Amino acid sequence: MDTDPPLELRVFNLNCWAIRYLSKLRQERIGLIGDTLSQEGFDLALLQEVWSERDYCELKQKLAACYPYSHYFKSGVIGSGLCVFSRYPILDTFLYQYSLNGYPYMLQHGDWFCGKAVGLLIIKICGIIFHVYVTHLHAEYCRDKDAYLPHRVVQAWELAQFIQHTSKGADVVLLGGDLNMHPGDVGIRLLRGWTGLRDSFADTERFEGCEDGCTLVPANCFINKEELQPFPLGIRIDYILYKGLSRFVVKCDSLMTTTGTAPGKSIPYSDHEAVIATLCVKPREEAKASSSSAVEPELVDVVNEARTEVRVGLHAAERQRYSNGRMAILALLLLLLQAAMGLSSLVGWDSPQPFPKFSFSLLSLLATVVLLLSMVLYVFHTIEVKMLQGTEEQMRLALQALQDKLSSM
Amino acid sequence: MDTDPPLELRVFNLNCWAIRYLSKLRQERIGLIGDTLSQEGFDLALLQEVWSERDYCELKQKLAACYPYSHYFKSGVIGSGLCVFSRYPILDTFLYQYSLNGYPYMLQHGDWFCGKAVGLLIIKICGIIFHVYVTHLHAEYCRDKDAYLPHRVVQAWELAQFIQHTSKGADVVLLGGDLNMHPGDVGIRLLRGWTGLRDSFADTERFEGCEDGCTLVPANCFINKEELQPFPLGIRIDYILYKGLSRFVVKCDSLMTTTGTAPGKSIPYSDHEAVIATLCVKPREEAKASSSSAVEPELVDVVNEARTEVRVGLHAAERQRYSNGRMAILALLLLLLQAAMGLSSLVGWDSPQPFPKFSFSLLSLLATVVLLLSMVLYVFHTIEVKMLQGTEEQMRLALQALQDKLSSM
Repeated sequence: MDTDPPLELRVFNLNCWAIRYLSKLRQERIGLIGDTLSQEGFDLALLQEVWSERDYCELKQKLAACYPYSHYFKSGVIGSGLCVFSRYPILDTFLYQYSLNGYPYMLQHGDWFCGKAVGLLIIKICGIIFHVYVTHLHAEYCRDKDAYLPHRVVQAWELAQFIQHTSKGADVVLLGGDLNMHPGDVGIRLLRGWTGLRDSFADTERFEGCEDGCTLVPANCFINKEELQPFPLGIRIDYILYKGLSRFVVKCDSLMTTTGTAPGKSIPYSDHEAVIATLCVKPREEAKASSSSAVEPELVDVVNEARTEVRVGLHAAERQRYSNGRMAILALLLLLLQAAMGLSSLVGWDSPQPFPKFSFSLLSLLATVVLLLSMVLYVFHTIEVKMLQGTEEQMRLALQALQDKLSSM
Repeated sequence: MDTDPPLELRVFNLNCWAIRYLSKLRQERIGLIGDTLSQEGFDLALLQEVWSERDYCELKQKLAACYPYSHYFKSGVIGSGLCVFSRYPILDTFLYQYSLNGYPYMLQHGDWFCGKAVGLLIIKICGIIFHVYVTHLHAEYCRDKDAYLPHRVVQAWELAQFIQHTSKGADVVLLGGDLNMHPGDVGIRLLRGWTGLRDSFADTERFEGCEDGCTLVPANCFINKEELQPFPLGIRIDYILYKGLSRFVVKCDSLMTTTGTAPGKSIPYSDHEAVIATLCVKPREEAKASSSSAVEPELVDVVNEARTEVRVGLHAAERQRYSNGRMAILALLLLLLQAAMGLSSLVGWDSPQPFPKFSFSLLSLLATVVLLLSMVLYVFHTIEVKMLQGTEEQMRLALQALQDKLSSM
């Protein structure tokens, strides 16, 4: 172990908003991001929304000298959009796809097609094992009537569980990503409470950047000002979280965000602001028991709150499944009726005023399409119901374990 | 730590073949399984193919006194079929769904609808932390032309990776399940080589049961003898695997399988034989380094072999995606042509011999159905391609890490 002087680690996190053909000035911005990463020489760069593998390859080529190790996580139809550039060797990777991630028929939102996931990378830096997690949760399209809230809460729970179960061998845990949750939202309280991860913005000694650490700000020229109206300062949804395990402590020496444009340029890197943390990792002074075993009593309330959200989602999913099942049965009945009418006309039992053939065929076309679609959706919502039920049950078990721990304290 | 005398653990594993309305004598067999579990008082019972939650609840009620702790893993359309009954408290659970699991349109096989997964349970027995994994991989329907082999290899890889990444905090790792792989198959060699798990059949001091430890045997009355013709003794696809970590060693004192019928009864528990292991867990004598860090040079060949299978699957998936894309384009062209013809007849440009209206409508119905289905399948196979590419890349990285380790040894 050659880590007696503290290890300083500079981490860059950015949602790059790089959708081919849709994102404005994509190529210029990817070029700009590449230039900055290469000039600044961070230790780790955690990127989200690099949807096109061609963009990743371009960055990889450009950054080969400065960041010899990198990984792109493939998932979903489009790709997870998650990638990492590292100055240090990546020893292993693992991907966990969230079990719920929106709806395939919400084409205008498109989250389902991205196969949202959390990627784990194991990186050894100066003898210290880092478990680096990069993720991007389901977007929030309407805060007042957020139909995706239960899915996002399930994702936050799965993220917390994944981190807890896969980080036992780590010295330091680091999570970067666009969590699509405000700092006080139930999902982020659940994630932080369950994992014991610390928020670099809340903990840093020196902060420089947008007020309140916001990462979606009205000053950014790609931002729809209308959508940010309820939040004049902007919102904070991109995070760098961390914790030291066993023999190490981590603190955030300084934190920076960009402020609407890339430093010294006229355009921003993305519609999100970049978050740049300087972390200091040093050996724990006394060999005290890991603080993560202490349970905060408030965590019970947070898990309960999350469980309520999951239940709300469950009711909605059950309603959706029911209405799709009903629709499928109606379409099937209509088709059967039409088949009977068709057959009766074939054997010569023509009604005196036959149904016009063209409308008849059009109706059967419509019924077939409706039958097929509602069957597929019935199956889809059944899976959703199962996953929400499973999460609710898991949370119940977790609450029981929490309460047992608290009562034995 | 009160485990100086060795801990003896009796583990029961069974694929229960409990499909409502389809499996023969299901209710009698579930009753029989419940009776046996309750009489024998195992420490852990790992069950697969308990598809109906009603059957699980029936078992849970019956076994409440003997196995006060239990868990059912929900997933997929039907449910994962995985459940566990335990004499000791279950502290936490976690589910990982395999990213590939057959095809939704293979209705006669149905694996896709089950959401095949691996369930993790954390159980503390006499101060020892057990990570218990229960799983069921994709079935093999035709050994000579096994279209699902790449999916099963991906599942075996994900299972191995999941176990490796989530077992760092464990004292003992235990895996039970129907792996649908013969002992020499690439997937099982990959799983065992990567995780260091030991096979209770290969390691036991005393074995009693079917020859070669087979768990699908011709003596079982529910077995289709034709399918087992190439294997007159039967095949072994159900396993109990284990390893001790850090401070503990595990060995298998004795192993048993049923032999075509439930002991003392005229019918079997299932179409699979039950596997019953008596494991002995004791503290490691010397505090030597964990043996799992030693790398076997053969593992490189196994990972390479698995990677080749994944590549074969990738080519097949790319072909499927291509043919679905082509079909969708053809159906779209036909629909456009028909729309043009329909419009031209509306504006009075009738051709001298018009296409019969009924056939015209039937054709458009067909084209619409084909367009919809091939679009959905195109999306599905694109996801398959992405996941196979991702696995192949992960295996490449793993091989690199293995070779680095070997060369530094």
